[in-house]
Amino acid sequence: MTTKKPEDILADASAWWDTSIIDIHPGEIAIRGYPVEELIGNVRFPEMIWLMLRGELPTTAQGNLLEAALVPGVDHGPHAPSIAIARMAVTCGLPVNGAMASAINVLDDIHGGAGQQCMELYGEIDAEAGAAGDLIDAAEIVIRRHMAAGEKIVPGFGHRFHPIDPRPAPLFKLVAKAVAEGAVSGRHAAIGKAVSDALERIKGRHIPMNIDGITAVIFCELGFEPELGRGLFILSRAVGILAHAWEQKQRGRRIMGPMPKEIPFRYSGPARRAVPEPAARGAQAPRSVR
Amino acid sequence: MTTKKPEDILADASAWWDTSIIDIHPGEIAIRGYPVEELIGNVRFPEMIWLMLRGELPTTAQGNLLEAALVPGVDHGPHAPSIAIARMAVTCGLPVNGAMASAINVLDDIHGGAGQQCMELYGEIDAEAGAAGDLIDAAEIVIRRHMAAGEKIVPGFGHRFHPIDPRPAPLFKLVAKAVAEGAVSGRHAAIGKAVSDALERIKGRHIPMNIDGITAVIFCELGFEPELGRGLFILSRAVGILAHAWEQKQRGRRIMGPMPKEIPFRYSGPARRAVPEPAARGAQAPRSVR
Amino acid sequence: MTTKKPEDILADASAWWDTSIIDIHPGEIAIRGYPVEELIGNVRFPEMIWLMLRGELPTTAQGNLLEAALVPGVDHGPHAPSIAIARMAVTCGLPVNGAMASAINVLDDIHGGAGQQCMELYGEIDAEAGAAGDLIDAAEIVIRRHMAAGEKIVPGFGHRFHPIDPRPAPLFKLVAKAVAEGAVSGRHAAIGKAVSDALERIKGRHIPMNIDGITAVIFCELGFEPELGRGLFILSRAVGILAHAWEQKQRGRRIMGPMPKEIPFRYSGPARRAVPEPAARGAQAPRSVR
Amino acid sequence: MTTKKPEDILADASAWWDTSIIDIHPGEIAIRGYPVEELIGNVRFPEMIWLMLRGELPTTAQGNLLEAALVPGVDHGPHAPSIAIARMAVTCGLPVNGAMASAINVLDDIHGGAGQQCMELYGEIDAEAGAAGDLIDAAEIVIRRHMAAGEKIVPGFGHRFHPIDPRPAPLFKLVAKAVAEGAVSGRHAAIGKAVSDALERIKGRHIPMNIDGITAVIFCELGFEPELGRGLFILSRAVGILAHAWEQKQRGRRIMGPMPKEIPFRYSGPARRAVPEPAARGAQAPRSVR
Repeated sequence: MTTKKPEDILADASAWWDTSIIDIHPGEIAIRGYPVEELIGNVRFPEMIWLMLRGELPTTAQGNLLEAALVPGVDHGPHAPSIAIARMAVTCGLPVNGAMASAINVLDDIHGGAGQQCMELYGEIDAEAGAAGDLIDAAEIVIRRHMAAGEKIVPGFGHRFHPIDPRPAPLFKLVAKAVAEGAVSGRHAAIGKAVSDALERIKGRHIPMNIDGITAVIFCELGFEPELGRGLFILSRAVGILAHAWEQKQRGRRIMGPMPKEIPFRYSGPARRAVPEPAARGAQAPRSVR
Repeated sequence: MTTKKPEDILADASAWWDTSIIDIHPGEIAIRGYPVEELIGNVRFPEMIWLMLRGELPTTAQGNLLEAALVPGVDHGPHAPSIAIARMAVTCGLPVNGAMASAINVLDDIHGGAGQQCMELYGEIDAEAGAAGDLIDAAEIVIRRHMAAGEKIVPGFGHRFHPIDPRPAPLFKLVAKAVAEGAVSGRHAAIGKAVSDALERIKGRHIPMNIDGITAVIFCELGFEPELGRGLFILSRAVGILAHAWEQKQRGRRIMGPMPKEIPFRYSGPARRAVPEPAARGAQAPRSVR
Repeated sequence: MTTKKPEDILADASAWWDTSIIDIHPGEIAIRGYPVEELIGNVRFPEMIWLMLRGELPTTAQGNLLEAALVPGVDHGPHAPSIAIARMAVTCGLPVNGAMASAINVLDDIHGGAGQQCMELYGEIDAEAGAAGDLIDAAEIVIRRHMAAGEKIVPGFGHRFHPIDPRPAPLFKLVAKAVAEGAVSGRHAAIGKAVSDALERIKGRHIPMNIDGITAVIFCELGFEPELGRGLFILSRAVGILAHAWEQKQRGRRIMGPMPKEIPFRYSGPARRAVPEPAARGAQAPRSVR
Repeated sequence: MTTKKPEDILADASAWWDTSIIDIHPGEIAIRGYPVEELIGNVRFPEMIWLMLRGELPTTAQGNLLEAALVPGVDHGPHAPSIAIARMAVTCGLPVNGAMASAINVLDDIHGGAGQQCMELYGEIDAEAGAAGDLIDAAEIVIRRHMAAGEKIVPGFGHRFHPIDPRPAPLFKLVAKAVAEGAVSGRHAAIGKAVSDALERIKGRHIPMNIDGITAVIFCELGFEPELGRGLFILSRAVGILAHAWEQKQRGRRIMGPMPKEIPFRYSGPARRAVPEPAARGAQAPRSVR
């Protein structure tokens, strides 16, 4: 199938799994060039997350701001599908790795993607405003463009359950502190506020920033790519998923569905009917009983 | 939080899990209205798949054509990520359900989505041609439109490994038979051939239809929605994933990675370096050693 | 790291992914030795499942019995975690592959393992009875042994919801037919009935066989290993998981949790309290408010 | 189906999702009783992990020791199935959540369970020794018991790749420091050393502790249950899984299998053969060509 020399095929196989993250030899592990034995005890866990994702170590202030943003996303209770799935999964016999897998999997575009989409929105407003443009005007232009394209939700703003989400305010203070210390520029904090002001202009009422909106500010200030914003949220929520899986597991319940069985699910399909002979199939239309 | 009456909240909870697929009461199970005890032995497995996905039973000819299309997609060997992942997973300790989950998960847009995309392409050509238009002209217009939008691959045509994919020819014969019997219209078979002809015009050479192209023809002829095309492929490939997981499990290997460890992965990150003091972090740029 | 010749390392890499299931060359695919183009149209889908898992094609009667056993397990409604998870997953943005992965993953020991455990139980009774022993006596000995070891459930018998599961009776008829035709021996059907009789002796009341008990009979009669019993159930339930994911997706809901939000989850942890200063942490005990 | 009052059924539904972890009301979120706005900025991420899993906040010294143990497990390169799967998954089209799900799923008994098993081993030795017994004697008894039961591997000791794992030594220093500060008792550090000494007695050579052995020491010293040891490892490895998924995604490759296709997988099944007529099936035995 190939006339390559075996040495060259082996080099291809090594290159197939090329990475700039880790180098391993017998008795030696280096991450981004740093010997693992030097990292242990000298680098904090959020700094390690940064190093793995970005290639370099953050400053202490950058690491602290990232760390603060990882705290509030850990959990939002059993009404969140990610948490509910983890709890149901252990009652089916899964160990924590399996429960975490089934649950983390659903942190997709809709359940886990609002932060990422908000980061993209901020980036679009940043580009729209350019160096000297007014941020509120730029935000209004961008939001109206998205609305014209049929989008109904501005990611990072408003909340189905909380009239005012309690998480953004304390994080905003930490951003302001980091700006004052020169750790971040404050550009994306200003863009976040501009979105809020633009929304008030458009909708005629205040739609407060939610947890996704403020973590998007922080991750943008720290220079993360939008998809990594989703990744960081997953690292945070993974903690809550594990905690709920573990709590449920200790209760020993078996095959826990979404509701007690005494609440029946509603059936809205065809009424009871006989299975037709093969020759009579393929013609009848379904009837709804709802 | 709510002033609804308890009865109404319970009705909301039932409606939350509304389904038209199955109705269950103590001692009674009806699927799409058919008592399960009547389905057993009277309905074949591919017909059951059809009933579950479509709401009605197919004719025998429709069921047979669907069945034939489920056969060839079961496996494409350990170079397919879906198969490789299943085999690695069992060596990590997973039972078959876990191995199947990790593997089926990767049947996403790129690995499992070509059939679905091809169905969408056929649908676009169908609409472009309208009732009386030339199918090859319509196919050329649609393909050139996709190419102009930056798409490099025509889903369902060409194969990285097989100069001629051995699977479409026998399936095409079965479609022709079904057309002759009046079970399907043949419209999408004609569209599939038109894509092939249009590609020859555009590229100046024959690019043969692959397995995704022919199963897309069949699923379109049978009236399935494109996303169900992906779903049907997953039901098929699930068989191969299970077979490979099982074969690997019987061999008893532990933690099998993608290659023997004697083939090292290539490292292309920064050279070995000391962890800087916290105060010195955040400045240095990464260096590549590749 | 190694002094092996490159040719030998390459042979090791080929052997790393050794399989007896499929052979692929450019333009050629053979499954268990059979050219794929000959399998298409000549082998039915359940026969293909058998070929992939067992290495050889079944007789028509064996294939038909396997097929019948795949039909009833496709669905048991949204109270089943596997179905509920699939429906929640699509409302989080997952495509069908992701929804199927999260859902299939939970078909573990407790939710998907009863059939497998029942097959193991039948095997144990088979061995206990030997060639000439009384099956009911053997069943009683084995069940009492499991009970003495602390097991509370006899897999395959009794049902939390159905006083009489409607699925075993029609399947039993098909087993009887296959026995009459000489397709299977009937040994495991007899063992299944013996378990029922032994349970009546032990518990003083009839505990009817459920769907797992009868599919275990069939899969044992057909010579499948217990873990493949779980695998076959997954192939069956995958159909229902796909159907429910697809139905839910068409409804367009976003982030659907397990219950309407108007039903609050119960909180049973410590009452509201202030975060202590770092120096004061690690001493206080949690208080429950339940 | 039930004669309960609607209010009672609703209470059952609330209790169905009972949790002691989080309490949520409009505008209010409290975790383990602490208002989320107080936790932000006052509690570090590893302390938050502790709070979620244990119910109370750790002392600063406990939090630091936990943090150090989370650093080295983040990555062990693309030869680890968890890392390889993440990289393959993104080339199939999965976003980071999906790649992380497929990868975390395989951190099961064998790939992710050694730390948990080592914690159980330490616990068994602790109980065997009792308050006054010799730890090395107890370790020898316990290890010999496991060997007699057929176990071939002592979890946490020895490494297939590293003659000496570089990660335990710096972590041991941090444990010693925590013992000196009175943060932990040192009991499990002593047990870990006792296992090493007992292994030398039994095997006649030194088998050094690996990363699982030392993190098991730390998690035991800090009072975590064994299954949470696996959970903590998953939280750590999730970082590497995300980093590798992200690195691979930026390279834009499509459907990357485990090896370049120029290295064929080995086929060891039956030689090419014709599909028999249905009446001739079920008799032939498979032949191996290996």
